[in-house]
Amino acid sequence: MTMTNGYEQSDREEKLAILNLPSLEEKAKEIIPTGGFGYITEGSEYEWTLKENTKAFDHVQIIPRVLTSVENPSTETQLLDINLSMPIIAAPVAAQGLAHARGELATAQGMAKAGTIMSQSTYGNATIEEIAKEGNGAPQFFQLYMSKDWEINKTWLDEAVNSGVKAIVMTVDSMLGGYREADIINNFQFPIPMGNLEKLSAGDSKGKGIAEIYAAAAQVILPSDVKKVAEYTGLPVFVKGIQSPEDAEIAIEAGAAGIWVSNHGGRQLNGGPASFDVLKAISDKVNKRVPIVFDSGVRRGSHVFKALANGADIVAIGRPILYGLALGGAQGAQSVVEHLNHELKIVMQLAGTQTVEDIKKAKLIRQNPINDSLSEN
Amino acid sequence: MTMTNGYEQSDREEKLAILNLPSLEEKAKEIIPTGGFGYITEGSEYEWTLKENTKAFDHVQIIPRVLTSVENPSTETQLLDINLSMPIIAAPVAAQGLAHARGELATAQGMAKAGTIMSQSTYGNATIEEIAKEGNGAPQFFQLYMSKDWEINKTWLDEAVNSGVKAIVMTVDSMLGGYREADIINNFQFPIPMGNLEKLSAGDSKGKGIAEIYAAAAQVILPSDVKKVAEYTGLPVFVKGIQSPEDAEIAIEAGAAGIWVSNHGGRQLNGGPASFDVLKAISDKVNKRVPIVFDSGVRRGSHVFKALANGADIVAIGRPILYGLALGGAQGAQSVVEHLNHELKIVMQLAGTQTVEDIKKAKLIRQNPINDSLSEN
Amino acid sequence: MTMTNGYEQSDREEKLAILNLPSLEEKAKEIIPTGGFGYITEGSEYEWTLKENTKAFDHVQIIPRVLTSVENPSTETQLLDINLSMPIIAAPVAAQGLAHARGELATAQGMAKAGTIMSQSTYGNATIEEIAKEGNGAPQFFQLYMSKDWEINKTWLDEAVNSGVKAIVMTVDSMLGGYREADIINNFQFPIPMGNLEKLSAGDSKGKGIAEIYAAAAQVILPSDVKKVAEYTGLPVFVKGIQSPEDAEIAIEAGAAGIWVSNHGGRQLNGGPASFDVLKAISDKVNKRVPIVFDSGVRRGSHVFKALANGADIVAIGRPILYGLALGGAQGAQSVVEHLNHELKIVMQLAGTQTVEDIKKAKLIRQNPINDSLSEN
Amino acid sequence: MTMTNGYEQSDREEKLAILNLPSLEEKAKEIIPTGGFGYITEGSEYEWTLKENTKAFDHVQIIPRVLTSVENPSTETQLLDINLSMPIIAAPVAAQGLAHARGELATAQGMAKAGTIMSQSTYGNATIEEIAKEGNGAPQFFQLYMSKDWEINKTWLDEAVNSGVKAIVMTVDSMLGGYREADIINNFQFPIPMGNLEKLSAGDSKGKGIAEIYAAAAQVILPSDVKKVAEYTGLPVFVKGIQSPEDAEIAIEAGAAGIWVSNHGGRQLNGGPASFDVLKAISDKVNKRVPIVFDSGVRRGSHVFKALANGADIVAIGRPILYGLALGGAQGAQSVVEHLNHELKIVMQLAGTQTVEDIKKAKLIRQNPINDSLSEN
Repeated sequence: MTMTNGYEQSDREEKLAILNLPSLEEKAKEIIPTGGFGYITEGSEYEWTLKENTKAFDHVQIIPRVLTSVENPSTETQLLDINLSMPIIAAPVAAQGLAHARGELATAQGMAKAGTIMSQSTYGNATIEEIAKEGNGAPQFFQLYMSKDWEINKTWLDEAVNSGVKAIVMTVDSMLGGYREADIINNFQFPIPMGNLEKLSAGDSKGKGIAEIYAAAAQVILPSDVKKVAEYTGLPVFVKGIQSPEDAEIAIEAGAAGIWVSNHGGRQLNGGPASFDVLKAISDKVNKRVPIVFDSGVRRGSHVFKALANGADIVAIGRPILYGLALGGAQGAQSVVEHLNHELKIVMQLAGTQTVEDIKKAKLIRQNPINDSLSEN
Repeated sequence: MTMTNGYEQSDREEKLAILNLPSLEEKAKEIIPTGGFGYITEGSEYEWTLKENTKAFDHVQIIPRVLTSVENPSTETQLLDINLSMPIIAAPVAAQGLAHARGELATAQGMAKAGTIMSQSTYGNATIEEIAKEGNGAPQFFQLYMSKDWEINKTWLDEAVNSGVKAIVMTVDSMLGGYREADIINNFQFPIPMGNLEKLSAGDSKGKGIAEIYAAAAQVILPSDVKKVAEYTGLPVFVKGIQSPEDAEIAIEAGAAGIWVSNHGGRQLNGGPASFDVLKAISDKVNKRVPIVFDSGVRRGSHVFKALANGADIVAIGRPILYGLALGGAQGAQSVVEHLNHELKIVMQLAGTQTVEDIKKAKLIRQNPINDSLSEN
Repeated sequence: MTMTNGYEQSDREEKLAILNLPSLEEKAKEIIPTGGFGYITEGSEYEWTLKENTKAFDHVQIIPRVLTSVENPSTETQLLDINLSMPIIAAPVAAQGLAHARGELATAQGMAKAGTIMSQSTYGNATIEEIAKEGNGAPQFFQLYMSKDWEINKTWLDEAVNSGVKAIVMTVDSMLGGYREADIINNFQFPIPMGNLEKLSAGDSKGKGIAEIYAAAAQVILPSDVKKVAEYTGLPVFVKGIQSPEDAEIAIEAGAAGIWVSNHGGRQLNGGPASFDVLKAISDKVNKRVPIVFDSGVRRGSHVFKALANGADIVAIGRPILYGLALGGAQGAQSVVEHLNHELKIVMQLAGTQTVEDIKKAKLIRQNPINDSLSEN
Repeated sequence: MTMTNGYEQSDREEKLAILNLPSLEEKAKEIIPTGGFGYITEGSEYEWTLKENTKAFDHVQIIPRVLTSVENPSTETQLLDINLSMPIIAAPVAAQGLAHARGELATAQGMAKAGTIMSQSTYGNATIEEIAKEGNGAPQFFQLYMSKDWEINKTWLDEAVNSGVKAIVMTVDSMLGGYREADIINNFQFPIPMGNLEKLSAGDSKGKGIAEIYAAAAQVILPSDVKKVAEYTGLPVFVKGIQSPEDAEIAIEAGAAGIWVSNHGGRQLNGGPASFDVLKAISDKVNKRVPIVFDSGVRRGSHVFKALANGADIVAIGRPILYGLALGGAQGAQSVVEHLNHELKIVMQLAGTQTVEDIKKAKLIRQNPINDSLSEN
């Protein structure tokens, strides 16, 4: 363990033999200090949406298909011309130093080794440049929490562009933080500085809680801001936090090059639907005009399959990667996405889908409470 | 603590740091004596309706909205030309001396400080005049349990009018009490006199249980009684205890100036629907002819939002205020409504609603078990 | 306690202060020996239908009605020209000596005092004559388990007619017993002789289990048997064990003067629907041509109300009366039905129904998972 | 107990007094070593489908029928001209030596005594010939896991034909194993050789896990393979692992003489529907062109009835037979199917069905959440 500002960080670096992603949480609990663990795991209010996010996958079922020619299914896919070994990427998660001494640097290394995308967070514990360098050319996204100050935004975006990130991910669902109780109970404040904030006159982020951090960010983000960021960077911009077809349409009209369906892992609006439950309606509206990344609640290979079958092009995971970080550093994070992809391959074979594109054409069914017909999802 | 007629009353007076309203119940349990706590918390029969009242909010979901111009949402609103700082008021609750030595006086003070309405109960431990004086001009309602004797009703109503209450709330769902088991188990009888009963030849209320108190009240309340009270006082009359569109119509035709949708916190008819589940149908029928106050089961900011989106103009809470009273007197009660309003503001921002009027236009959705379309609520 | 053939029977005789019917089971468990208690409480197979019987009442809700002229609701009603103080009667239950030394004699006394009907069972521990005498003119039914031997049937039916029973109840759902596990685990055999079997050359019933008793009874009961019994006795015949509109029609065409909707308290076919869930469809088919008695799962006043609103004319209860027997003899049994009726009266007032006939016109609603309209049940 | 390669096998041989099939699991747990017990009981991933398999029977209900002429219902039936004493057969289960020293030999003996079909597994611990000899003429099926090598398939099929098996069962849902966690936790490898693999140059199966065994089998099975096996053997071929009408159609067109609806006991694709929930749609599509065997989740007589009423001609059980094996050898296995059939007979009587053909005509109902009409299943 490494001690930083009184906060104990794991410094493990090892491959993990993972049984499944849910089981990592209790193991990580023994390593990550209470305040950091609370921040990572919590949802908002009474966490209905957090729990529903994962339960919702049980609303629909995958049909086992047989007598197909499927053999050794391939999980290779593309997102915005980026070749990926799997349809699973890292979601942007702030303050990864809470889980590991090397934080985002380890995650970047792990995702690079896994052959997939690392998403940086504005509120990471290292800077954009540092994390990009660690990726050594592997594809990364930069998730922007817009600052009130456009000059600050430009500084970050310039660094992102120069560092070679492939896309900007604009988080638009966090004008303020959801009502998160673990942080209140733990009186949690970030123990480790956030690199991108440190290097600006925006000042020191150590000793602040997430509410204060959000309050210092832009309090309003409009469609015109999406356009502005897209034009300024010349990069594709994903709008992250979409939970309705209406907002997907607004984002696309504003110039979004991708829709990121997410309810921020149940950490923002409690009382909103499970992210998986709104995915298909959004996908129908988007109608393949732009790619869709989906997150919130994904824990199993069958969940990844269901999301891809219901309209997602790519699935992102958040908390489990942090648990892998704590338990094994870069290799730990790598083990997590590789395990999930391993589970996905099994599902693909048993569902009769050879490729990720085949998954997207697969029909899900819903146990129909009214009659026995296999109603399509 | 203060001892009155052998009953131990809290005499705390302090601001509360509230994590959430549900957690107050177990803390209050340590302070409020068993008999009083049982009376406050109980529902009727096997408490299906009591539990369903709060569970029902999970039947529908709020859509997180993004890329809006919403910033610092305002919870200010109006009810009958009364300006309120929040769309949350105190529901009438009898015998608040069970929770605190200053009972209704403290609640009145707390609501006044919070900038919202205190609802007096006929069966309060202080008189109408005393409670109004404590409010010092802040808006109050007087909830009437009609007496068999019109003279007695006039005495109370005169005092209410002269004390400056803004509206009369006629409770019509309690011709007798629901089958409440805690009172039976505890052999509960009110230890502290009820001021409005004391001052009449109706006699002493100390040592009676709620069944006896109700039995001494009017056994029948007809639409003509609503009209009578409205005409006599010249004040707006809310009819409280409406759970069907038919009864809302009857009340309006009888002269009601407001509909109070409530099932008395699950204390009356067990086996009736959750109050939230009947709200929209009633609201559709009322069709904005008169304002709607909604209570029964509200505990979180997302619940308040859902009620307002489903047709309520104002939301009232009962038990949590009593818990706040016990834990902190006037400031305790004030802390409770302010906390709930704080949670509401977070929901408002994340749902993209700038004002209470915006909430009323927001569409809720229902997870549809048949297909993935986002069906409107 | 009284010891009979090594089986310990309660001999209490006292009024009971009953909190509710469900709570009687665990109290009775302390008094009734294991084998007898298992026989009384068990359902069949994995007891899904047994549990669903009571849960099903939560599928529909009663609408609280206000501003009505209802006052002191009356539970008086009639069944086949018999005046009853309540729409609640005793269901036929075998071997009541398992619960109390005076068994059926005490129940008969208790129902007579309560002003309602006692239903005798062919497999009672006293004879038809003895039980009728105890009722001292109060109305009784005689439930017939047809014997293979018509002569035996005639003996019983003659005794029933001569004893003045008001109707014959033919149980048709027990050609053999459901798969009841408690009896197997307890290796249960009836410890106390059954009077109606003892007095025949059909021999001794002591030391037999229910399977053997049923095996000695008629193995087939046809519509023509209903007609035969009706013609032979000249009495109204209820057919008990109906769970489908088709069978109700068959029974009526066969001459049934009443339909007894029941799944034998979940003791027969596990995997069948809750009795309450099939009631309305049967009632619609019967269309008031004959009265309907309903049993299986009723435990609360709101349950009685829901059954009457959904088509039943009368509700019968079984196990709770046995618990009341064990705890207080005749007065105990009387206390049970009187308590249930007391709960019913409260529901009636709060639902705005003055009489039992009003309950039958009341509309129930169902929380609709698809939309918010108050769909009628 | 018998020790084989360090694995402790039961060697009991006794009739069992069975209360019900579910209760056998915990008793068997005390006898079967951890690794073997885990292999037998496990499902895949988070075992949603495994649990749903049995829960799904509660989605529909059997209507109790009365006043019928049904007496001593008969469970005799036929499958492919084979006379059976019951509509229940043994599903193919690999490595039965995990449960008992005599493994498949004991099961074959038990099923022969019970008058029903034993299904051999390619991965049994005895050879095709040995198991057939033990059956002594009683009907057996041979379930084929196709080898990559057609010569090996021919060797097995020749032995099957020469041993007099009545049908080939081709398992098509296991191109690889589902993600089974117990095997991973236990690091499970088969301790006892598989006879049919041993005798080939395909080599030794001891010390391998199921993943390796499956990986050595054919990785693709096409409709043409079904035709090939049917033509080569001249025997009826069942295609096992069908969970959709589309695949049933494909199998029939490929020459299948029977459809085996199964999700491999929830061990393959987790996230797929309960097998019972897809049965009726498949049966409607098959439209009696070929017989349907159904498995996955059957544990009670009411489950067997529901499967037969929803389109199955025969029901197969897997794990419970293994538990019976462990607890009582051949007689134990026999006791299991006989007990299940005993429960079925009770259900048949109470449902008014005299024969298995009558069950197939019985209508199931579904508790309708929208209204009270008895909607047909």
